[in-house]
Amino acid sequence: MTERSNPIMSCNHHLLLKIFLSLLGAALAICFIQLGALDFMKTLIESGYSGTSHHAIFVKPKLGPILSTNRSSCFSNGIFTRPSISEKLLKDIMKRRAEEYRQHQLRMGANLNRLIIAPANSPLQYPITGFTVSPMQKSLIPGLALQAQKGEAYKVSLSVNKGVLSVEDLLDGDQVEGQGRSNLTISSSNLTQLNDLLSRVTYTSTIYHIKTSDLFHFTFEDHEVMFPITIRRQTIPVLYDPGNDVNSQVTIVTKTFLRYEELNVLIKSIRMFYPRIKIIIADDSLKPEPITEKNIEHYIMPPTQGWFAGRNLAISQVTTKYFLWVDDDFVFLNGTRIESFVEIMEAVPELDILGGAVSGNQFYFKLKYEEGDEEEGGCLTRVKKEFHQPLPNFEDCILVDGVVNYFLGRTDAVRRVGFDPFLKRVGHSEFFMDGLGQLLVASCKGLSIGHQKHRPHGKYAYFRTQKKADGKRKVYHHFFKNYLKYLQF
Amino acid sequence: MTERSNPIMSCNHHLLLKIFLSLLGAALAICFIQLGALDFMKTLIESGYSGTSHHAIFVKPKLGPILSTNRSSCFSNGIFTRPSISEKLLKDIMKRRAEEYRQHQLRMGANLNRLIIAPANSPLQYPITGFTVSPMQKSLIPGLALQAQKGEAYKVSLSVNKGVLSVEDLLDGDQVEGQGRSNLTISSSNLTQLNDLLSRVTYTSTIYHIKTSDLFHFTFEDHEVMFPITIRRQTIPVLYDPGNDVNSQVTIVTKTFLRYEELNVLIKSIRMFYPRIKIIIADDSLKPEPITEKNIEHYIMPPTQGWFAGRNLAISQVTTKYFLWVDDDFVFLNGTRIESFVEIMEAVPELDILGGAVSGNQFYFKLKYEEGDEEEGGCLTRVKKEFHQPLPNFEDCILVDGVVNYFLGRTDAVRRVGFDPFLKRVGHSEFFMDGLGQLLVASCKGLSIGHQKHRPHGKYAYFRTQKKADGKRKVYHHFFKNYLKYLQF
Repeated sequence: MTERSNPIMSCNHHLLLKIFLSLLGAALAICFIQLGALDFMKTLIESGYSGTSHHAIFVKPKLGPILSTNRSSCFSNGIFTRPSISEKLLKDIMKRRAEEYRQHQLRMGANLNRLIIAPANSPLQYPITGFTVSPMQKSLIPGLALQAQKGEAYKVSLSVNKGVLSVEDLLDGDQVEGQGRSNLTISSSNLTQLNDLLSRVTYTSTIYHIKTSDLFHFTFEDHEVMFPITIRRQTIPVLYDPGNDVNSQVTIVTKTFLRYEELNVLIKSIRMFYPRIKIIIADDSLKPEPITEKNIEHYIMPPTQGWFAGRNLAISQVTTKYFLWVDDDFVFLNGTRIESFVEIMEAVPELDILGGAVSGNQFYFKLKYEEGDEEEGGCLTRVKKEFHQPLPNFEDCILVDGVVNYFLGRTDAVRRVGFDPFLKRVGHSEFFMDGLGQLLVASCKGLSIGHQKHRPHGKYAYFRTQKKADGKRKVYHHFFKNYLKYLQF
Repeated sequence: MTERSNPIMSCNHHLLLKIFLSLLGAALAICFIQLGALDFMKTLIESGYSGTSHHAIFVKPKLGPILSTNRSSCFSNGIFTRPSISEKLLKDIMKRRAEEYRQHQLRMGANLNRLIIAPANSPLQYPITGFTVSPMQKSLIPGLALQAQKGEAYKVSLSVNKGVLSVEDLLDGDQVEGQGRSNLTISSSNLTQLNDLLSRVTYTSTIYHIKTSDLFHFTFEDHEVMFPITIRRQTIPVLYDPGNDVNSQVTIVTKTFLRYEELNVLIKSIRMFYPRIKIIIADDSLKPEPITEKNIEHYIMPPTQGWFAGRNLAISQVTTKYFLWVDDDFVFLNGTRIESFVEIMEAVPELDILGGAVSGNQFYFKLKYEEGDEEEGGCLTRVKKEFHQPLPNFEDCILVDGVVNYFLGRTDAVRRVGFDPFLKRVGHSEFFMDGLGQLLVASCKGLSIGHQKHRPHGKYAYFRTQKKADGKRKVYHHFFKNYLKYLQF
């Protein structure tokens, strides 16, 4: 590395000439700029500029645990989620909600992603991004170098907060102070030797954490640069063996309540096309009837436990890479081909959910979300029939935020989001809300399944319909859980 | 911004003098270094240097979808996981496994974290890290500036790959080429005007993705710098209302099989101390017996569905922020205080799992994992009674990788990892393997629960004991799922 960064190796006379002609200017510029840039950089760093807003240059810090105070409130014509209760009760709830939100921001690492600006004309060379280490393990820091004008002596200072620094293979006479501590000073009268020492500097985090970061400070004379060190514990791969056919790739999952007649029609239709595929059924009927066919797993829940609880139970039992969600009153048709879903998912491994159409209805939507003010919370609006853009290479598919109740899901990705068991009667988009920014969702034409004709079930309708009290509870749930001020469906 | 970076505002005569004395040297240095550094930076970028190894300077690229070929194989005295089957069968399996691993790396964003080195003495100022945008939304790029020596004219080029660039509020006469395209050229005879234009440059991604990144190229004359743009779809908070007491914060979850006698002892002991806390029971007994007490949810699984399937079912039904895992043959003692777990978790929001001790046995371990060679896979060793370091501010607690079967878990975090339903009979550390790097785990002295005296159950023992075939299947499972070559418990 010292070889490569040795100035003598690559000079360009054209440029050299140009610079001679403006020596004075150059000299002035260098000194002016160093200081100007340093101030500027510091300001931006102190301001913790988030970089996502138009007028953010002087935004206040967004350090996870501390709620920043610069976000503006949002509005929509949707439901105002704040409960209408006594001021005292509300105050307690708001306090609890704010604390949970603070913990959430901290856990999301909101404090690990601050903006850093590289100053112009700094003689320091360093890794600006991508330097990742394992906690409490020594790692060589790549790319550190000083490339200053000739002088009698050179002295650089290095410092970190959550670890220690040292120079590998130190020899007698090397001028290194602070070996094995968090502040290191390296001096030499020879630039090549200094860079050789810099090329052997290592970092070892002294705190154990699976996901955090440190900030490296590197200074020479009046020049200072900073760069982040990502501290990340390695993960172990978790893969699914897809085997050789659809039966080892996909499990069909559904949730039922009282509608055994419909369920049996569905099962029969599945068996016509997929005689051996595994079917998982979550059942919270009042008087569960046994289902003991081959390759069917029947799970019995406490009566009326609810819709999302059942969906979450069902996916918790899947052992294949993908699962196909169907409602208990759907019916497989000649055109229903699970393989088509799998082909697209395999071609686009980043996809998490792929939705089809139920008796020709390709339902999909986009979610518009504003973070809103820190105390009030955000605003969420569901916009039907809108999509982000076509899915590259698949002209019949579009990228969206939510799809119909007939989709192929990536088991591990969907489990990470999950179906909130709180939602008992009514729930669909709520899953896609929880998955926003975590699930890449697409919807395709021509992936179709049928819907059985409606059969009257007095009892079913009674339980299925959401009571007024349930509705209120649900709104409060979104107020607290999703930190929402307005919700528009 | 142009104000702050205006050279005239902050000159330092001491430094100015120093630089005059070494004008020639400076001039030479500048030109040498610009080119040297540029070459060096390019080399490192092309080499996609990972920054985590000691001799990584010339490492080949690690672009997610392409398996890099520089990792060295690992060894341990543990079980060699590769199945001893016909070459042909093995070849098919290895091919499947490699493909799943490729997809895994791609999904983990292995291609989004490449190392970039900032060259020394570049006149360009730019955000090195922390610049994050929402997909397909226009964002102002912070900190762009040129700070060059005086000249007749200045011209900078900007380019990106996954989006378009433009200058806001463009006026007639502004020399901007490529407005709204992925390559932008800005020229001016006035440095302040150029920097004013640079301060208004916006980026808009043209591809929709929830989690990806772009690379920004910024050049002036022979100088080139690059920085990453993080493209991230916003997520909606998912919070749990902790309410005001332990009953609204914690659910007790367990899995039972045939041992109703033990289960009833456990339940009675819980009710002595926590009369109202919710208990969730997953039951895969051969002849399930009804359990219909208040605040108990009893889930009936297909017979002998298995240990981890039951655990995964149980946590899928939790609606509180935390759950307490207990085995069906534990017993609550006078000293068993769930509140103590909660206090520590609330004080350290980044903790995901907090383990206690079962009849005085505070079981915990560390996992040593080597990624190993790309084709062969990794090596994993479990080391009992080792920990990373004490949990700051809690002298009786240590940070570890795995704990005993008695722990408080953060519901959302544990669900993200989950209990692999494949593991039917034997399984404990497997959950912590899957959670490595994803769950921050601690173990504390003094958080104790009792273990009931062992009662003989012929049938239970028969099912509980792992058959030879099961053992083989399990080893193969780790071979494929965890991409392991050696596994040592």
